[in-house]
Amino acid sequence: MRLPVDLPKSYRLLNHGPTVLVTSAHAGRRNVMAAAWNTGLDFNPARVLVVIDKNTYTRELVKASGVFALNVPSRALAKATLDVGSISGREIPEGDKFSRFRLDTFPASMIDVPLVEGCVGWLECRVIPEPHNEKTYDLFIGEVVAAWADSRVFSDGHWHFTDDDSLRTIHYVAGGNFLAIGESFEVKP
Amino acid sequence: MRLPVDLPKSYRLLNHGPTVLVTSAHAGRRNVMAAAWNTGLDFNPARVLVVIDKNTYTRELVKASGVFALNVPSRALAKATLDVGSISGREIPEGDKFSRFRLDTFPASMIDVPLVEGCVGWLECRVIPEPHNEKTYDLFIGEVVAAWADSRVFSDGHWHFTDDDSLRTIHYVAGGNFLAIGESFEVKP
Repeated sequence: MRLPVDLPKSYRLLNHGPTVLVTSAHAGRRNVMAAAWNTGLDFNPARVLVVIDKNTYTRELVKASGVFALNVPSRALAKATLDVGSISGREIPEGDKFSRFRLDTFPASMIDVPLVEGCVGWLECRVIPEPHNEKTYDLFIGEVVAAWADSRVFSDGHWHFTDDDSLRTIHYVAGGNFLAIGESFEVKP
Repeated sequence: MRLPVDLPKSYRLLNHGPTVLVTSAHAGRRNVMAAAWNTGLDFNPARVLVVIDKNTYTRELVKASGVFALNVPSRALAKATLDVGSISGREIPEGDKFSRFRLDTFPASMIDVPLVEGCVGWLECRVIPEPHNEKTYDLFIGEVVAAWADSRVFSDGHWHFTDDDSLRTIHYVAGGNFLAIGESFEVKP
Protein backbone atom coordinates (compact mmCIF):
# COMPACT_ATOMS: atom_id res chain seq x y z
CA MET A 1 0.00 0.00 0.00
CA ARG A 2 1.20 3.53 -0.82
CA LEU A 3 1.28 5.63 2.33
CA PRO A 4 2.31 9.24 2.91
CA VAL A 5 5.70 9.92 4.53
CA ASP A 6 6.05 12.78 7.01
CA LEU A 7 8.03 15.46 5.23
CA PRO A 8 10.73 15.85 7.92
CA LYS A 9 11.41 12.11 7.53
CA SER A 10 11.23 12.03 3.74
CA TYR A 11 15.05 12.31 3.51
CA ARG A 12 15.15 8.74 4.78
CA LEU A 13 13.92 7.55 1.40
CA LEU A 14 17.27 8.76 0.02
CA ASN A 15 19.57 8.55 3.04
CA HIS A 16 20.94 5.11 2.13
CA GLY A 17 21.88 6.28 -1.34
CA PRO A 18 19.55 4.65 -3.87
CA THR A 19 19.62 5.53 -7.55
CA VAL A 20 16.41 7.37 -8.44
CA LEU A 21 14.21 8.04 -11.44
CA VAL A 22 13.63 11.75 -12.03
CA THR A 23 10.22 12.42 -13.56
CA SER A 24 9.18 15.71 -15.09
CA ALA A 25 6.44 17.23 -17.22
CA HIS A 26 5.56 20.50 -18.92
CA ALA A 27 2.87 21.52 -21.38
CA GLY A 28 1.78 18.01 -22.26
CA ARG A 29 5.31 16.61 -22.55
CA ARG A 30 6.78 14.33 -19.91
CA ASN A 31 10.00 12.47 -19.29
CA VAL A 32 11.93 10.19 -16.97
CA MET A 33 15.69 9.79 -16.43
CA ALA A 34 17.92 7.94 -13.96
CA ALA A 35 20.07 9.79 -11.41
CA ALA A 36 22.55 8.23 -9.01
CA TRP A 37 23.74 11.66 -7.91
CA ASN A 38 21.18 12.71 -5.35
CA THR A 39 21.12 13.31 -1.61
CA GLY A 40 19.05 14.67 1.22
CA LEU A 41 19.90 18.25 2.12
CA ASP A 42 17.68 19.33 4.99
CA PHE A 43 15.05 17.94 7.36
CA ASN A 44 12.63 20.78 7.90
CA PRO A 45 11.90 22.28 5.44
CA ALA A 46 12.58 18.99 3.71
CA ARG A 47 15.06 19.55 0.90
CA VAL A 48 16.82 17.24 -1.51
CA LEU A 49 19.36 17.69 -4.26
CA VAL A 50 19.84 16.01 -7.64
CA VAL A 51 22.25 16.48 -10.53
CA ILE A 52 20.50 17.01 -13.89
CA ASP A 53 22.83 17.40 -16.85
CA LYS A 54 22.45 20.42 -19.14
CA ASN A 55 21.86 18.34 -22.24
CA THR A 56 18.96 16.34 -20.87
CA TYR A 57 15.33 16.68 -21.88
CA THR A 58 14.53 16.44 -18.17
CA ARG A 59 16.49 19.63 -17.59
CA GLU A 60 14.38 21.47 -20.17
CA LEU A 61 11.12 20.28 -18.60
CA VAL A 62 12.23 20.96 -15.02
CA LYS A 63 13.41 24.47 -15.90
CA ALA A 64 10.08 25.18 -17.62
CA SER A 65 7.82 23.72 -14.93
CA GLY A 66 9.79 24.36 -11.72
CA VAL A 67 8.95 20.90 -10.37
CA PHE A 68 10.27 17.34 -10.46
CA ALA A 69 9.76 14.07 -8.64
CA LEU A 70 12.31 11.56 -7.39
CA ASN A 71 11.01 7.99 -7.65
CA VAL A 72 12.97 5.28 -5.81
CA PRO A 73 12.91 2.19 -8.03
CA SER A 74 12.97 -1.35 -6.73
CA ARG A 75 15.05 -4.14 -8.22
CA ALA A 76 12.07 -5.14 -10.36
CA LEU A 77 12.68 -1.86 -12.23
CA ALA A 78 16.46 -2.21 -12.63
CA LYS A 79 16.28 -2.85 -16.36
CA ALA A 80 13.89 0.07 -16.85
CA THR A 81 16.25 2.27 -14.78
CA LEU A 82 19.13 1.40 -17.09
CA ASP A 83 16.93 1.77 -20.18
CA VAL A 84 15.63 5.24 -19.37
CA GLY A 85 19.19 6.29 -18.62
CA SER A 86 20.43 5.19 -22.03
CA ILE A 87 18.33 7.31 -24.38
CA SER A 88 17.08 10.89 -24.37
CA GLY A 89 13.37 11.60 -24.34
CA ARG A 90 14.09 13.86 -27.33
CA GLU A 91 15.07 10.85 -29.44
CA ILE A 92 11.76 9.05 -29.14
CA PRO A 93 9.71 9.68 -32.28
CA GLU A 94 6.34 8.60 -30.93
CA GLY A 95 5.05 8.55 -27.36
CA ASP A 96 7.66 8.99 -24.64
CA LYS A 97 10.04 6.98 -22.47
CA PHE A 98 7.16 5.80 -20.28
CA SER A 99 5.37 4.19 -23.22
CA ARG A 100 8.60 3.03 -24.84
CA PHE A 101 9.72 1.15 -21.73
CA ARG A 102 6.22 0.25 -20.51
CA LEU A 103 6.39 2.26 -17.30
CA ASP A 104 2.99 2.79 -15.75
CA THR A 105 2.45 6.05 -13.92
CA PHE A 106 0.05 7.70 -11.53
CA PRO A 107 -0.40 11.42 -10.82
CA ALA A 108 1.55 13.18 -8.09
CA SER A 109 -0.54 14.81 -5.37
CA MET A 110 0.97 18.31 -5.16
CA ILE A 111 2.73 18.83 -8.49
CA ASP A 112 1.84 18.11 -12.10
CA VAL A 113 4.34 15.32 -12.72
CA PRO A 114 3.81 11.59 -13.29
CA LEU A 115 5.06 9.16 -10.64
CA VAL A 116 6.31 5.69 -11.62
CA GLU A 117 4.33 2.62 -10.54
CA GLY A 118 6.39 -0.15 -8.99
CA CYS A 119 8.79 2.19 -7.22
CA VAL A 120 9.04 1.95 -3.41
CA GLY A 121 9.37 5.65 -2.58
CA TRP A 122 8.38 8.95 -4.17
CA LEU A 123 9.34 12.56 -3.39
CA GLU A 124 7.40 15.40 -5.03
CA CYS A 125 9.62 18.49 -5.24
CA ARG A 126 9.43 22.17 -6.13
CA VAL A 127 12.68 23.63 -7.45
CA ILE A 128 14.37 26.23 -5.24
CA PRO A 129 15.86 28.35 -8.02
CA GLU A 130 19.66 28.56 -7.78
CA PRO A 131 20.87 29.70 -11.21
CA HIS A 132 24.57 29.57 -10.31
CA ASN A 133 24.37 25.97 -9.06
CA GLU A 134 22.28 24.90 -12.01
CA LYS A 135 24.64 26.47 -14.53
CA THR A 136 27.96 25.62 -12.90
CA TYR A 137 27.26 22.21 -11.35
CA ASP A 138 23.99 20.97 -12.94
CA LEU A 139 22.80 20.96 -9.35
CA PHE A 140 19.08 21.24 -8.62
CA ILE A 141 17.74 21.77 -5.13
CA GLY A 142 14.15 20.89 -4.42
CA GLU A 143 11.80 21.41 -1.52
CA VAL A 144 9.87 18.22 -0.84
CA VAL A 145 6.16 19.05 -0.86
CA ALA A 146 4.82 15.48 -0.60
CA ALA A 147 6.37 12.04 -0.13
CA TRP A 148 5.11 8.46 -0.35
CA ALA A 149 6.40 4.98 0.30
CA ASP A 150 5.39 1.39 -0.34
CA SER A 151 4.42 0.27 3.15
CA ARG A 152 5.61 -3.27 2.43
CA VAL A 153 9.21 -2.01 2.72
CA PHE A 154 9.07 1.47 4.34
CA SER A 155 6.86 2.67 7.18
CA ASP A 156 7.18 4.77 10.33
CA GLY A 157 10.28 6.36 8.88
CA HIS A 158 12.23 3.12 8.42
CA TRP A 159 13.05 0.68 5.66
CA HIS A 160 12.19 -2.94 6.41
CA PHE A 161 13.13 -4.94 3.35
CA THR A 162 11.84 -8.50 3.19
CA ASP A 163 12.83 -11.79 1.60
CA ASP A 164 11.31 -10.49 -1.61
CA ASP A 165 14.49 -9.19 -3.22
CA SER A 166 12.52 -7.61 -6.06
CA LEU A 167 11.45 -4.87 -3.62
CA ARG A 168 14.99 -3.86 -2.59
CA THR A 169 16.36 -0.48 -3.66
CA ILE A 170 19.07 -0.42 -6.31
CA HIS A 171 22.36 1.44 -6.24
CA TYR A 172 24.03 2.03 -9.57
CA VAL A 173 27.78 1.65 -10.07
CA ALA A 174 28.51 1.87 -13.82
CA GLY A 175 28.21 -0.08 -17.07
CA GLY A 176 24.94 -1.83 -16.19
CA ASN A 177 26.27 -2.90 -12.77
CA PHE A 178 24.05 -2.34 -9.78
CA LEU A 179 24.22 -3.24 -6.12
CA ALA A 180 21.01 -4.14 -4.33
CA ILE A 181 20.65 -2.88 -0.79
CA GLY A 182 21.38 -5.63 1.71
CA GLU A 183 20.99 -6.56 5.32
CA SER A 184 19.64 -4.23 7.99
CA PHE A 185 21.54 -3.98 11.28
CA GLU A 186 21.47 -1.86 14.38
CA VAL A 187 24.38 -0.36 16.27
CA LYS A 188 24.28 0.84 19.87
CA PRO A 189 26.38 3.86 20.80
CA MET B 1 46.04 -3.52 -0.44
CA ARG B 2 45.37 0.23 -0.80
CA LEU B 3 45.54 1.20 -4.47
CA PRO B 4 45.03 4.54 -6.21
CA VAL B 5 41.73 5.14 -8.03
CA ASP B 6 41.74 7.08 -11.31
CA LEU B 7 40.22 10.46 -10.52
CA PRO B 8 37.53 10.36 -13.24
CA LYS B 9 36.34 7.07 -11.71
CA SER B 10 36.58 8.18 -8.09
CA TYR B 11 32.85 9.08 -8.03
CA ARG B 12 32.21 5.34 -8.11
CA LEU B 13 33.33 5.12 -4.50
CA LEU B 14 30.23 7.19 -3.66
CA ASN B 15 27.84 6.35 -6.50
CA HIS B 16 26.02 3.62 -4.58
CA GLY B 17 25.35 5.98 -1.70
CA PRO B 18 27.47 4.91 1.28
CA THR B 19 27.62 6.92 4.49
CA VAL B 20 31.08 8.46 4.82
CA LEU B 21 33.42 9.74 7.49
CA VAL B 22 34.56 13.31 6.87
CA THR B 23 38.06 13.92 8.19
CA SER B 24 39.60 17.35 8.63
CA ALA B 25 42.58 19.05 10.21
CA HIS B 26 43.97 22.53 10.80
CA ALA B 27 46.84 23.89 12.86
CA GLY B 28 47.43 20.72 14.85
CA ARG B 29 43.75 20.01 15.49
CA ARG B 30 41.88 17.24 13.68
CA ASN B 31 38.41 15.78 13.61
CA VAL B 32 36.12 13.18 12.10
CA MET B 33 32.34 13.17 11.62
CA ALA B 34 29.81 10.99 9.82
CA ALA B 35 27.89 12.20 6.76
CA ALA B 36 25.14 10.34 4.94
CA TRP B 37 24.43 13.38 2.76
CA ASN B 38 27.07 13.17 0.07
CA THR B 39 27.13 12.53 -3.66
CA GLY B 40 29.31 12.58 -6.73
CA LEU B 41 28.95 15.77 -8.73
CA ASP B 42 31.23 15.53 -11.77
CA PHE B 43 33.57 13.11 -13.48
CA ASN B 44 36.37 15.26 -14.85
CA PRO B 45 37.37 17.34 -12.99
CA ALA B 46 36.25 14.90 -10.32
CA ARG B 47 33.96 16.68 -7.89
CA VAL B 48 31.95 15.56 -4.91
CA LEU B 49 29.55 17.22 -2.51
CA VAL B 50 28.93 16.80 1.21
CA VAL B 51 26.67 18.50 3.74
CA ILE B 52 28.57 19.82 6.79
CA ASP B 53 26.38 21.48 9.42
CA LYS B 54 27.24 24.98 10.63
CA ASN B 55 27.61 23.94 14.24
CA THR B 56 30.17 21.20 13.65
CA TYR B 57 33.82 21.32 14.59
CA THR B 58 34.49 19.79 11.17
CA ARG B 59 32.99 22.89 9.56
CA GLU B 60 35.42 25.12 11.46
CA LEU B 61 38.43 23.03 10.44
CA VAL B 62 37.36 22.68 6.79
CA LYS B 63 36.71 26.41 6.49
CA ALA B 64 40.14 27.15 7.97
CA SER B 65 42.10 24.60 5.94
CA GLY B 66 40.18 24.45 2.65
CA VAL B 67 40.47 20.67 2.50
CA PHE B 68 38.65 17.55 3.68
CA ALA B 69 38.64 13.84 3.02
CA LEU B 70 35.72 11.46 2.57
CA ASN B 71 36.48 8.02 4.00
CA VAL B 72 34.12 5.17 3.07
CA PRO B 73 33.78 2.98 6.16
CA SER B 74 33.19 -0.76 6.06
CA ARG B 75 30.75 -2.57 8.32
CA ALA B 76 33.60 -3.26 10.73
CA LEU B 77 33.52 0.49 11.44
CA ALA B 78 29.74 0.85 11.85
CA LYS B 79 29.92 1.41 15.61
CA ALA B 80 32.70 3.96 15.17
CA THR B 81 30.65 5.70 12.47
CA LEU B 82 27.73 6.03 14.87
CA ASP B 83 30.03 7.05 17.72
CA VAL B 84 31.81 9.86 15.88
CA GLY B 85 28.42 11.13 14.74
CA SER B 86 27.10 11.35 18.29
CA ILE B 87 29.55 13.79 19.88
CA SER B 88 31.30 16.95 18.77
CA GLY B 89 35.08 17.07 18.61
CA ARG B 90 34.76 20.24 20.69
CA GLU B 91 33.40 18.24 23.62
CA ILE B 92 36.41 15.97 23.99
CA PRO B 93 38.60 17.26 26.83
CA GLU B 94 41.75 15.33 25.97
CA GLY B 95 42.92 13.98 22.64
CA ASP B 96 40.35 13.88 19.85
CA LYS B 97 37.65 11.66 18.38
CA PHE B 98 40.28 9.45 16.76
CA SER B 99 41.88 8.62 20.08
CA ARG B 100 38.56 8.52 21.93
CA PHE B 101 37.11 5.91 19.56
CA ARG B 102 40.40 4.17 18.77
CA LEU B 103 40.45 5.04 15.08
CA ASP B 104 43.87 4.57 13.52
CA THR B 105 44.84 6.96 10.77
CA PHE B 106 47.38 7.38 8.03
CA PRO B 107 48.35 10.56 6.18
CA ALA B 108 46.61 11.62 2.98
CA SER B 109 48.86 12.00 -0.06
CA MET B 110 47.88 15.43 -1.42
CA ILE B 111 46.28 17.22 1.52
CA ASP B 112 47.14 17.58 5.19
CA VAL B 113 44.27 15.52 6.61
CA PRO B 114 44.28 12.13 8.37
CA LEU B 115 42.62 9.19 6.60
CA VAL B 116 40.90 6.45 8.61
CA GLU B 117 42.39 2.94 8.61
CA GLY B 118 39.90 0.15 7.98
CA CYS B 119 37.85 2.12 5.49
CA VAL B 120 37.47 0.71 1.97
CA GLY B 121 37.65 3.96 -0.01
CA TRP B 122 39.16 7.41 0.45
CA LEU B 123 38.70 10.69 -1.47
CA GLU B 124 41.08 13.58 -0.77
CA CYS B 125 39.33 16.87 -1.60
CA ARG B 126 40.06 20.57 -1.94
CA VAL B 127 37.12 22.84 -1.24
CA ILE B 128 35.77 24.81 -4.19
CA PRO B 129 34.64 27.90 -2.27
CA GLU B 130 30.92 28.56 -2.67
CA PRO B 131 29.97 30.91 0.19
CA HIS B 132 26.26 31.04 -0.71
CA ASN B 133 25.91 27.23 -0.75
CA GLU B 134 27.90 26.87 2.45
CA LYS B 135 25.86 29.48 4.27
CA THR B 136 22.40 28.64 2.92
CA TYR B 137 22.57 24.86 2.56
CA ASP B 138 25.66 23.74 4.54
CA LEU B 139 26.75 22.40 1.19
CA PHE B 140 30.46 21.89 0.49
CA ILE B 141 31.77 21.08 -2.97
CA GLY B 142 35.19 19.50 -3.26
CA GLU B 143 37.52 18.72 -6.12
CA VAL B 144 38.94 15.24 -5.69
CA VAL B 145 42.73 15.49 -5.85
CA ALA B 146 43.54 11.87 -4.94
CA ALA B 147 41.49 8.72 -4.32
CA TRP B 148 42.24 5.28 -2.94
CA ALA B 149 40.43 1.99 -2.46
CA ASP B 150 40.93 -1.31 -0.69
CA SER B 151 41.64 -3.63 -3.62
CA ARG B 152 39.97 -6.53 -1.83
CA VAL B 153 36.59 -4.94 -2.59
CA PHE B 154 37.18 -2.20 -5.22
CA SER B 155 39.46 -2.33 -8.25
CA ASP B 156 39.39 -1.31 -11.93
CA GLY B 157 36.58 1.10 -11.12
CA HIS B 158 34.20 -1.50 -9.70
CA TRP B 159 33.10 -2.79 -6.33
CA HIS B 160 33.41 -6.56 -5.85
CA PHE B 161 32.27 -7.31 -2.34
CA THR B 162 33.03 -10.77 -1.02
CA ASP B 163 31.61 -13.21 1.51
CA ASP B 164 33.38 -11.18 4.18
CA ASP B 165 30.45 -8.99 5.23
CA SER B 166 32.70 -6.88 7.45
CA LEU B 167 34.10 -5.25 4.28
CA ARG B 168 30.72 -4.12 2.91
CA THR B 169 29.88 -0.44 2.80
CA ILE B 170 27.27 0.87 5.23
CA HIS B 171 24.28 3.08 4.48
CA TYR B 172 22.80 4.92 7.41
CA VAL B 173 19.05 5.27 7.91
CA ALA B 174 18.44 6.79 11.38
CA GLY B 175 18.51 5.94 15.08
CA GLY B 176 21.47 3.57 14.90
CA ASN B 177 19.94 1.65 11.97
CA PHE B 178 22.15 0.90 9.01
CA LEU B 179 21.76 -1.10 5.83
CA ALA B 180 24.77 -2.97 4.49
CA ILE B 181 25.22 -2.97 0.74
CA GLY B 182 24.04 -6.24 -0.76
CA GLU B 183 24.21 -8.32 -3.87
CA SER B 184 25.81 -7.18 -7.12
CA PHE B 185 23.89 -7.74 -10.35
CA GLU B 186 24.19 -6.75 -13.96
CA VAL B 187 21.49 -5.53 -16.30
CA LYS B 188 21.67 -5.56 -20.09
CA PRO B 189 19.99 -2.73 -21.99
